[in-house]
Amino acid sequence: MAFNSFGNLLKLTTYGESHGPAIGGVIDGFPAGVILNFEAIQDELNRRKPGQSKIVTQRKEPDTVEFLSGVFEGKTTGTSIGFIINNTNQKSRDYSHNTDVYRPSHADFTYDKKFGARDYRGGGRSSARETANWVVAGALAKQLISSISINAFTSSVGNIEMMKGYNQLDFSKTESNIVRCPDDKIATLMINKIKEIRKQGDTIGGTISCVAQNIPIGLGEPIFHKLHAELGKAMLSLNAVKGFEFGSGFEGTKMKGSQHNDIFNSDNSTKTNHSGGIQGGISNGMDIYFRVAFKPVATIMQNQETINSKGEVTAIMGKGRHDPCVVPRAVPVIEALTALVLADFWLLNKTRKV
Amino acid sequence: MAFNSFGNLLKLTTYGESHGPAIGGVIDGFPAGVILNFEAIQDELNRRKPGQSKIVTQRKEPDTVEFLSGVFEGKTTGTSIGFIINNTNQKSRDYSHNTDVYRPSHADFTYDKKFGARDYRGGGRSSARETANWVVAGALAKQLISSISINAFTSSVGNIEMMKGYNQLDFSKTESNIVRCPDDKIATLMINKIKEIRKQGDTIGGTISCVAQNIPIGLGEPIFHKLHAELGKAMLSLNAVKGFEFGSGFEGTKMKGSQHNDIFNSDNSTKTNHSGGIQGGISNGMDIYFRVAFKPVATIMQNQETINSKGEVTAIMGKGRHDPCVVPRAVPVIEALTALVLADFWLLNKTRKV
Amino acid sequence: MAFNSFGNLLKLTTYGESHGPAIGGVIDGFPAGVILNFEAIQDELNRRKPGQSKIVTQRKEPDTVEFLSGVFEGKTTGTSIGFIINNTNQKSRDYSHNTDVYRPSHADFTYDKKFGARDYRGGGRSSARETANWVVAGALAKQLISSISINAFTSSVGNIEMMKGYNQLDFSKTESNIVRCPDDKIATLMINKIKEIRKQGDTIGGTISCVAQNIPIGLGEPIFHKLHAELGKAMLSLNAVKGFEFGSGFEGTKMKGSQHNDIFNSDNSTKTNHSGGIQGGISNGMDIYFRVAFKPVATIMQNQETINSKGEVTAIMGKGRHDPCVVPRAVPVIEALTALVLADFWLLNKTRKV
Amino acid sequence: MAFNSFGNLLKLTTYGESHGPAIGGVIDGFPAGVILNFEAIQDELNRRKPGQSKIVTQRKEPDTVEFLSGVFEGKTTGTSIGFIINNTNQKSRDYSHNTDVYRPSHADFTYDKKFGARDYRGGGRSSARETANWVVAGALAKQLISSISINAFTSSVGNIEMMKGYNQLDFSKTESNIVRCPDDKIATLMINKIKEIRKQGDTIGGTISCVAQNIPIGLGEPIFHKLHAELGKAMLSLNAVKGFEFGSGFEGTKMKGSQHNDIFNSDNSTKTNHSGGIQGGISNGMDIYFRVAFKPVATIMQNQETINSKGEVTAIMGKGRHDPCVVPRAVPVIEALTALVLADFWLLNKTRKV
Repeated sequence: MAFNSFGNLLKLTTYGESHGPAIGGVIDGFPAGVILNFEAIQDELNRRKPGQSKIVTQRKEPDTVEFLSGVFEGKTTGTSIGFIINNTNQKSRDYSHNTDVYRPSHADFTYDKKFGARDYRGGGRSSARETANWVVAGALAKQLISSISINAFTSSVGNIEMMKGYNQLDFSKTESNIVRCPDDKIATLMINKIKEIRKQGDTIGGTISCVAQNIPIGLGEPIFHKLHAELGKAMLSLNAVKGFEFGSGFEGTKMKGSQHNDIFNSDNSTKTNHSGGIQGGISNGMDIYFRVAFKPVATIMQNQETINSKGEVTAIMGKGRHDPCVVPRAVPVIEALTALVLADFWLLNKTRKV
Repeated sequence: MAFNSFGNLLKLTTYGESHGPAIGGVIDGFPAGVILNFEAIQDELNRRKPGQSKIVTQRKEPDTVEFLSGVFEGKTTGTSIGFIINNTNQKSRDYSHNTDVYRPSHADFTYDKKFGARDYRGGGRSSARETANWVVAGALAKQLISSISINAFTSSVGNIEMMKGYNQLDFSKTESNIVRCPDDKIATLMINKIKEIRKQGDTIGGTISCVAQNIPIGLGEPIFHKLHAELGKAMLSLNAVKGFEFGSGFEGTKMKGSQHNDIFNSDNSTKTNHSGGIQGGISNGMDIYFRVAFKPVATIMQNQETINSKGEVTAIMGKGRHDPCVVPRAVPVIEALTALVLADFWLLNKTRKV
Repeated sequence: MAFNSFGNLLKLTTYGESHGPAIGGVIDGFPAGVILNFEAIQDELNRRKPGQSKIVTQRKEPDTVEFLSGVFEGKTTGTSIGFIINNTNQKSRDYSHNTDVYRPSHADFTYDKKFGARDYRGGGRSSARETANWVVAGALAKQLISSISINAFTSSVGNIEMMKGYNQLDFSKTESNIVRCPDDKIATLMINKIKEIRKQGDTIGGTISCVAQNIPIGLGEPIFHKLHAELGKAMLSLNAVKGFEFGSGFEGTKMKGSQHNDIFNSDNSTKTNHSGGIQGGISNGMDIYFRVAFKPVATIMQNQETINSKGEVTAIMGKGRHDPCVVPRAVPVIEALTALVLADFWLLNKTRKV
Repeated sequence: MAFNSFGNLLKLTTYGESHGPAIGGVIDGFPAGVILNFEAIQDELNRRKPGQSKIVTQRKEPDTVEFLSGVFEGKTTGTSIGFIINNTNQKSRDYSHNTDVYRPSHADFTYDKKFGARDYRGGGRSSARETANWVVAGALAKQLISSISINAFTSSVGNIEMMKGYNQLDFSKTESNIVRCPDDKIATLMINKIKEIRKQGDTIGGTISCVAQNIPIGLGEPIFHKLHAELGKAMLSLNAVKGFEFGSGFEGTKMKGSQHNDIFNSDNSTKTNHSGGIQGGISNGMDIYFRVAFKPVATIMQNQETINSKGEVTAIMGKGRHDPCVVPRAVPVIEALTALVLADFWLLNKTRKV
């Protein structure tokens, strides 16, 4: 194991704090011979970056990735791919008010107790800034398994929920609005909701749905590396995530077997897809789809009671520029994690029969 | 990685098919010096075994575990703990009707395509019989972290849902009824529901909730080994599971930050616990609770259309003795997996600061 | 990591003590579709088993392996392969004289201090009996990479050394004598040496050489999984091993670069092979050869001064039936480990370029 | 596994090519709360850097390490430690003569065949420049296990061998001469030998010995993570290494058990130390010592016949500034690897008994 690594054969190892000089990582196990599209990688980072619209944090950071190794003459060489994203927005701010105060529902308290100290400048290592590293690695993974299409989108903000099934959606519309919901009408409601919440100095949760299509049959490993279990772990690794369901999910618990079973067509496809494209932990070629729950961001622009490390009651007021809703910027991160999981299993699957 | 291993320092590696001579496993990294209560281990296996009540499969298997190594004079020695559970119920049945037919929503099709062949006797490796191995390992883990209490229980069967919060429940009642719901009234409804479903030759889904209490602060590792992500992965590894949520879960997505944030008391506890005892992937000492969704069992006692490996349409009728609802027998498995995850992190945490 | 596992994709996990009910293991990652020759597996075990000749321990154990999973209708299924070797020679002996005494140069002292207790019946987990597990797994690996030939042989016993290069040897003669040296004359000297040493109640060291031929180009991974580094680690894992060298080895340190460099032929072979078939950690298609040093077995049939766990000086006399020289029985173990390493890299190499 | 990672709990993951913009790595699992001495880290790098004396390569590179994360206010935080060493010596040289020619006994051929292409600028990823990363990580490990002393030194150059046992040496003299041999007279002979070899445009091999003292009892894990097996693997990972022996090593194969066994003193120390401080894979508290064999560097300043990728015979002449003997600069690398292995086992050992 490694505390800061993700994946099996295709493995991402990362480092970096929100207010350190840089974040970055090492991608290990990426096969040789892949011609990389660097612009596409930067495009994915731009989808995640702060300051891109009115409903996300107004912090400005270019998030430019630089590759340091593992690529030569435009192609991967099979050796480890090092990359770095310099932090350009490190103001020498005064953090003295923060050093000893635990922000409610943040990781301040748990890091401090676990490690005996913490980097109190912003979130330190617990900041979602880390997910920029994941987007870089996921963008490479997408290029490795380019025949698979992966589309995530915002499916709810607070209690505004898009009820359409993914088959009724046009994924090309996801990027046409700033909340990344492919249903324009619902998108408008979501955007207004987020604006309203931000005015209150508050935050709101939401869900993201993701669909992976054109999946080879046989990805995933029985028992302890089931495809959906790795997808679930990946999604639950993302800041603010509280739940994961795939296929019929929690609703499926109310069904009978005779309703839930996916009957085969003679071409091996199934008439329904309650299985969500995965049976026994292995892809069956049908669409993989799942849904991820995000709690509201903990940093709010309101006064909150809290304690300091001595257990003294004090108050805290969120400062700086924060996301009123994490969901729009998390959409590309969900796709990146999905690509990493699928690419890893795609590599593993090359070794599973003679 | 290993396809059949779970955990980091405390690692379980398993083998075995439903109709082979035995199943079993190796527990690696279990510390020396733990005095084992073997009766308690067998008790856990008995909670999971088939034939224990009228609402589970009537298959009879004693599921007796034998330890082969790693224990000497009643204490663990620090070396690997080998164990075996002999399969006593291997009738030399005629499987010829099954060899070429894919049961709907089973793993038959995906195993066959992935590996080029499959063990067509029962579920083979994909059978939930494997989870007996997990219960053994989990029972050892429980004894390693004996100050932590772990209680799972059936929280819904189909649309019969227990609405009480876990704080209103008396966990000592969980084992007092055969569906393992600590609310007697709801338990009766659930049991009747399962009986009714079984009469229809059908199956039904449900959910299990689990609460872990008296947790040390600091378990879990930031970034890619968050406590809840490993719990989620563990639960999603269990047959028939379609979803996982912890703390506020999917409902929390509808909340505002000002409602959702858990405000500290001066003793480091929090006034609410929407976080589910985990912040930034690390336990904060509050109760950990989560919920797991199970789809209805795929094997039904009804005629179903399906195909064979040549893509020819045929029909299949479930035979044998199957669970109409997987949830009651999964309760001890959920506890076992929880114990394995917590014990692993408890060991890891011994190395995280000087 | 796992303390009792070896390999990356092809991973062996083992358990068992010399005087417990059984030893055994789980082979993970073995691809589906390999038709196994079970007789060949048992043959390898027979090469390692005690009691096979006059110069090895006279203990009698049949060492019969039983497969418990992962094989169906004679072929591997891609799931984990469980196996077990029952210990048939567990006399209920009186070990009371041993419980508190540390045998010199054994693992008694270190196990006791590390784990706080030890299994004092024979070597417990530290016994070379464990290597029977390795031979089983290695025999499967040999069948996976059957085009590669692996030949180990005794190259010295004490100061009796066979000076011929491996190219001058006929490996088919290795099994024609009980010391497993393919040079008959030297073999006779070695056998006489071991008999003489045994009469003295003493033991003697030796070396084993191993040659792997018909190796695909490209096995091994740069940086931290170099082919020779994994071979070295494997060999150093074997009881009593004190050294490993490959290619030109320690002698090569005295050479100049102009002498040592292997000049290419136009067919990519090299005129010399000081590199031992590995350059930059990766096989170049030439023969891989290496040599392994074994110290004399620590258990001698002579009176030795030692201490007990209280630090009191006492004496110990070896009892039972022990090997006067470990080398003859280690030959098949060296081959097994070599096969495991090569098969693992052969699988990994399927994922290293698109 | 990860191709570019070393260690278990304390894990180093690296990237970088000799002629890329930078090399660097991520140190995972380093405990929180260690006050780092950054000057001592840079000092270790300076011991390894090129251009430091007349008998090593005259290439000039400052090799300055910059830490990017995991350290805050001078102390480790428990999160991953990212570091980078910028390559300042990347001349935009003309490599066109090299792109298609395989240097004899280099990794050019094997990388090209394995990955389908290679970075032909210098050694690319196969360059020993990578070991600067190891020295950084090892310097941190030394500070984690600061009570253990680790001393490596040059014990032979070609056939000039220092015959003294390590107990007769004053390690404080190792840095007093440029070949890093603590015996001044032998050092002079070695230095002269290297100068003579360099004048010939040739290179020469050698050995390094290493001693680790004040070792806690109990480091190392039985079976597949034996302390000496991990040390051996580490050393064999270093460029140009062809052999490893510890304790009595290859010479011990000629001894009888009655001579070789280390008899205990009543304080648990042993009268002799043929075991090299390790029994059953676990440290016994005595000094650990081992010896590492280095072949002569493959790049020589002489004309050599070779082939290109089309199999055409051609000639090559080493250019640039290379080491005539790798041994002096490898001394700090050996120490670094030793520290990494010991620190990893020191962490693991915290989890092995209750």
